[in-house]
Amino acid sequence: MSEKQKKPQKLKARLPRGFVDRDAADIRAVNEMTARIREVYERYGFDPVETPLMEYTDALGKFLPDSDRPNEGVFSLQDDDDQWMSLRYDLTAPLARHVAENFNEIQLPYRTYRAGYVFRNEKPGPGRFRQFMQFDADTVGAAGVQADAEMCMMFADTMEALGIKRGDYVIRVNNRKVLDGVLEAIGLGGEDNAGARLTVLRAIDKLDKFGPEGVRLLLGEGRKDESGDFTKGARLNADQIEKVLFFVGIKDYAQSAADLAKLVEGSARGSEGVEELNQIGHLVTSAGYRPDRIKIDPSVVRGLEYYTGPVFEAELQFAVTNEKGEKVVFGSVGGGGRYDGLVSRFMGQPVPATGFSIGVSRLMTALKNLGKLGQSEVVAPVLVTVMDGDIESMGRYQRFTQELRAAGIRAEMYQGNWKKFGNQLKYADRRNAPIAIIQGGDERAEGVVQIKDLIEGKRLSGEIEDNTSWREARVAQVSVPEAEFVAKVREILEAQAEDRARAV
Amino acid sequence: MSEKQKKPQKLKARLPRGFVDRDAADIRAVNEMTARIREVYERYGFDPVETPLMEYTDALGKFLPDSDRPNEGVFSLQDDDDQWMSLRYDLTAPLARHVAENFNEIQLPYRTYRAGYVFRNEKPGPGRFRQFMQFDADTVGAAGVQADAEMCMMFADTMEALGIKRGDYVIRVNNRKVLDGVLEAIGLGGEDNAGARLTVLRAIDKLDKFGPEGVRLLLGEGRKDESGDFTKGARLNADQIEKVLFFVGIKDYAQSAADLAKLVEGSARGSEGVEELNQIGHLVTSAGYRPDRIKIDPSVVRGLEYYTGPVFEAELQFAVTNEKGEKVVFGSVGGGGRYDGLVSRFMGQPVPATGFSIGVSRLMTALKNLGKLGQSEVVAPVLVTVMDGDIESMGRYQRFTQELRAAGIRAEMYQGNWKKFGNQLKYADRRNAPIAIIQGGDERAEGVVQIKDLIEGKRLSGEIEDNTSWREARVAQVSVPEAEFVAKVREILEAQAEDRARAV
Repeated sequence: MSEKQKKPQKLKARLPRGFVDRDAADIRAVNEMTARIREVYERYGFDPVETPLMEYTDALGKFLPDSDRPNEGVFSLQDDDDQWMSLRYDLTAPLARHVAENFNEIQLPYRTYRAGYVFRNEKPGPGRFRQFMQFDADTVGAAGVQADAEMCMMFADTMEALGIKRGDYVIRVNNRKVLDGVLEAIGLGGEDNAGARLTVLRAIDKLDKFGPEGVRLLLGEGRKDESGDFTKGARLNADQIEKVLFFVGIKDYAQSAADLAKLVEGSARGSEGVEELNQIGHLVTSAGYRPDRIKIDPSVVRGLEYYTGPVFEAELQFAVTNEKGEKVVFGSVGGGGRYDGLVSRFMGQPVPATGFSIGVSRLMTALKNLGKLGQSEVVAPVLVTVMDGDIESMGRYQRFTQELRAAGIRAEMYQGNWKKFGNQLKYADRRNAPIAIIQGGDERAEGVVQIKDLIEGKRLSGEIEDNTSWREARVAQVSVPEAEFVAKVREILEAQAEDRARAV
Repeated sequence: MSEKQKKPQKLKARLPRGFVDRDAADIRAVNEMTARIREVYERYGFDPVETPLMEYTDALGKFLPDSDRPNEGVFSLQDDDDQWMSLRYDLTAPLARHVAENFNEIQLPYRTYRAGYVFRNEKPGPGRFRQFMQFDADTVGAAGVQADAEMCMMFADTMEALGIKRGDYVIRVNNRKVLDGVLEAIGLGGEDNAGARLTVLRAIDKLDKFGPEGVRLLLGEGRKDESGDFTKGARLNADQIEKVLFFVGIKDYAQSAADLAKLVEGSARGSEGVEELNQIGHLVTSAGYRPDRIKIDPSVVRGLEYYTGPVFEAELQFAVTNEKGEKVVFGSVGGGGRYDGLVSRFMGQPVPATGFSIGVSRLMTALKNLGKLGQSEVVAPVLVTVMDGDIESMGRYQRFTQELRAAGIRAEMYQGNWKKFGNQLKYADRRNAPIAIIQGGDERAEGVVQIKDLIEGKRLSGEIEDNTSWREARVAQVSVPEAEFVAKVREILEAQAEDRARAV
C-alpha cells in the first residue's frame, strides 16, 4: 500500500506567511532585553498595564467601509452579534480605548508601559512580519512638554541600560507644530493646501534616502529615479524650497534657532512649536542630557497620522553591513510623540497624551550586532543516561536526576529509546550537555557512577595545545561513589564555568 | 451647541465581551508566578519555544464544514488567498505543527515549555474569558512512561516552588488505556459501542459533582436533578455498574492494583494501562515522591479528546469559599497527558508526545487565596512636586528627578497641571507615593529642598498609639541642602521599609 493511500488526509504542517516560531535563543534574548527596559521604566515611575489582543475595529480608529470587510492592514472578523473586531495593529489605540473606558477610575497623569504583540495584515517581506512585538510607554493627561522631555530621557537611559554606548545612539526630537508653521509661512496653510502639504511632507520624509538634492527635486518639478520612473514634485518656487531645505537641513539647533523662529514668525502654531522645542531642550540639558544623547533635529518627520506636537525617534548611529554588503547606519529602533487627539475621540473633553514605542525585534537585531545579548549563557542540562531499561534501574536513574535537580543543577534523564547508547551520546552532543552520568551493571554492583565531562572530552579529542597544566588537572571521566556524585558534578560544572571565563 | 452636535461621531470606548484589560498588580503577580514556574522547567532541562498566535485552521485540528465559516469555538478569518486562519485555542496543537514542520532540524526527545495567550470563541461567563493564558511543557519523541512520570514530578515541584504546601496539592494520575480496558471488560469494546462508551465516560466525569450514587444512576437508568430534568443513563446492568464504580472508586491504588489487574484481564490495552500505571508509580516513588504528592487515581477522567495513555491533573486540596458562600475544595489548576496522535497527523510516522498545561489565571487565583503572591511589594515612585512653572524651575525639578533615578530610586516629576498644589498631593496620595520633594522660591533661595515623608505623615495624622519611640525618631517633613537630598530620601525609604518589615 503506498504512503499516499495510507494517509489520504495527511495534513500539511505550515504557518501562514509572515508568522514565525521563536526558538530558545530568541526568547531568552527578548526576555533579557525587555527585563532591562522594564527596569528603566519602573525607575521612571511607570507601571505596567495591558490590553487584550482583540478590540472592536472602530475603537482602533479603523473606519468601516460599506463593504463586508473593514479596511485592509488589520486582521478582522465579525463577532456573533455581527460587530467587527480586529487584532490590534499597535499598542497606542488600545491604550486610548482603555483610558477612555476607565476614565473615572484612572488617576491622571497616567504613566504606564506594556510589551505585546501587534498584527499587520500586510504582504510580509524580509524582516517584515505580520505578528511582531512592541514595547511602549505612555503618559496620558499631561499637557506640558515636560512629559515629552521625560520620554526622550527615558528613551536615552533605556539605550544605555541595554549596553549601547553614548555616541552609538541619539534621540532626535522635532515638533509637528514647527513643520506646520514652516508650511504656513511658505503659504501652504489652510484646508485647501492639505494635498500640497502632504506632497511636501512625503518629500521631506525621503531626506535620508535621496539627500537634500533629491528632496529639492521632489519639492520642485519632480524627480526621476535610476529606473527612469518619475515622481511628480510639489512645484514649490525657489524661495519656498529654500525655506523648507533650510528647515530640514538644520544640523545645530542652538545655532539656527533664531533663524527658525524668524522663519515661522506670523504662524502662531509655528512659534508655539519653536517655543516647545526650546523648552524640551532646556529641560533635558538641565537634567544633564547633552545633544550627543538628545538632539533637536527638525528633519525628523515621522508618524504623521496622529501626532500633534513633539515627535521623537531613537536612532542607532553605528554602521552595519546590509544585505547588499554596504556599510549603513543602523537607523531607527523606535519613536513616538504627542497624540493629543487619540483619547479625545472617545470623550467629550480633550485628553493630552504622549508616548513612544520600541520595535522589539529590530532593537534585538541591533543588540545582537553589538554583541550585547545572550551574555548570560544558559548551560545545557546534565544528561543522566539509561543503560538498563528494567523498572528498578529506571527508578534509580530517575532518582539521580531528581537529586541533581534538587541541588539546583539543570538535569534530565534520557527520555528516548535507551537501547542504542550511541543515540544517547549523540543527543548529549547535539544538546550541548556539559556532563553525562552513566551507571551500568558493573558500576551498580560497586555502588558508583561514571561522570563523563563532555566538554573536556571534546577538548581532549580535539588535541588543543594550550593551557596544558590546567588541562592536566581534569580528566574526561571519573568514577565516584553514588553518595558523592552530586558534589562531583557541581565541581566539574564549576571547572567548566571557569574555563569559559578564561576563554573570554 | 449641544454636546451631541459637537461630537456627532463620538466613539464608544468598550471591549468585546470576554476580553479584559490587566492592571499592574495582575501583571506583576503573573510575572512573578511564571518566573518561578520557568525556573522549575529550566531545572528539569526544558527549553522555551514559542509559536505565533495565528495558525491555519486545519493545522489546529479544526475541520472546515462546507459553510463559509469554520466551526465555532475558534476565532477564524480568511487570508487574502482565501485560506482559513484561526487564533490558537490551546498551545498543544501549534506545538505539534511546529514539530512536524521542523522535524528534520529538531533533536528528539524535544523538551520544551511556553506561556502564551489562547482564544476561545465562546460565550463568556464569570471567570471565563475569551482570551486567557496557559503555561505548557511538553516532551515530544519519548514513548516511555518515564516521560509522563517526569511531567508529574515537575508539576509537583512547580506547586511547591509557588509556595503551595505539601498536602495542599496532589497530582492525580490515571491512564486512558485502563479506562478502555474496563469498558472492554464489561463488554463495551469495539466500534459499535462508541456511543455507549461516551455515555459512560460522561457519567464518570460527573463523579466530583454528583458522587458515586449519582454516577450509579447515570450508569443505569438515568438521573433526575433537583429541577426535575432527567438525564438518560447508560443502561448498564448491575454487574457492569459495580465494575465501573469499583474502578472509579479506587482510593488506594496499591491496595486495589491486583483487583484492577484482574478486572481488565483479557483486555491487552487494559493490562498495558495497569502496567504503565505501576511503572509510573514505581518511578516517582524511587525518586522520593510519595502518594501525598503524586497519587494514582483511576477516577481522573480528563481531556478525553486526544489523550492516548497516561493522564494527569494537578488539584489544590485546600478549601475556599465559593460565590454561594460554601466551602469547597479549590480543585484543578492544570493537567495533561500523553497525546501520541497529534504530531503524527502531519507525518508519515508515529511521534509519541506527552505534556501538561497550567491555567495561569486559575492558578493565580489560588495563589492569591493562599497569600502567596504580591509578596515582593513594589514601592510607588517618589514624587518631585512642581511649585513654579517657569522654564528654569522646571529644569531644576527635572534634574532632582533624574538624580533620584540615577541613584536607582523610583521617582517622577509631577506631569499634570502644577498650578493647584493640592492636586499634586492628591495625586501622590492616590498613587501611594512614599515621599514628596518640594522646593518653592524660599527653599530655592536657601539652596534646600523639603522632603515630605508621606507614609509617616499619614501615620501622624492618624494618631497611631503604638511604637512611640520609633515614631519619635522620624518626622514627617525635613529640610535638607540640595546636595544631600538624595541620601536623605534613601534614608527615609529605608526607614519606611523597616517599618513595613516590623508590621508583618
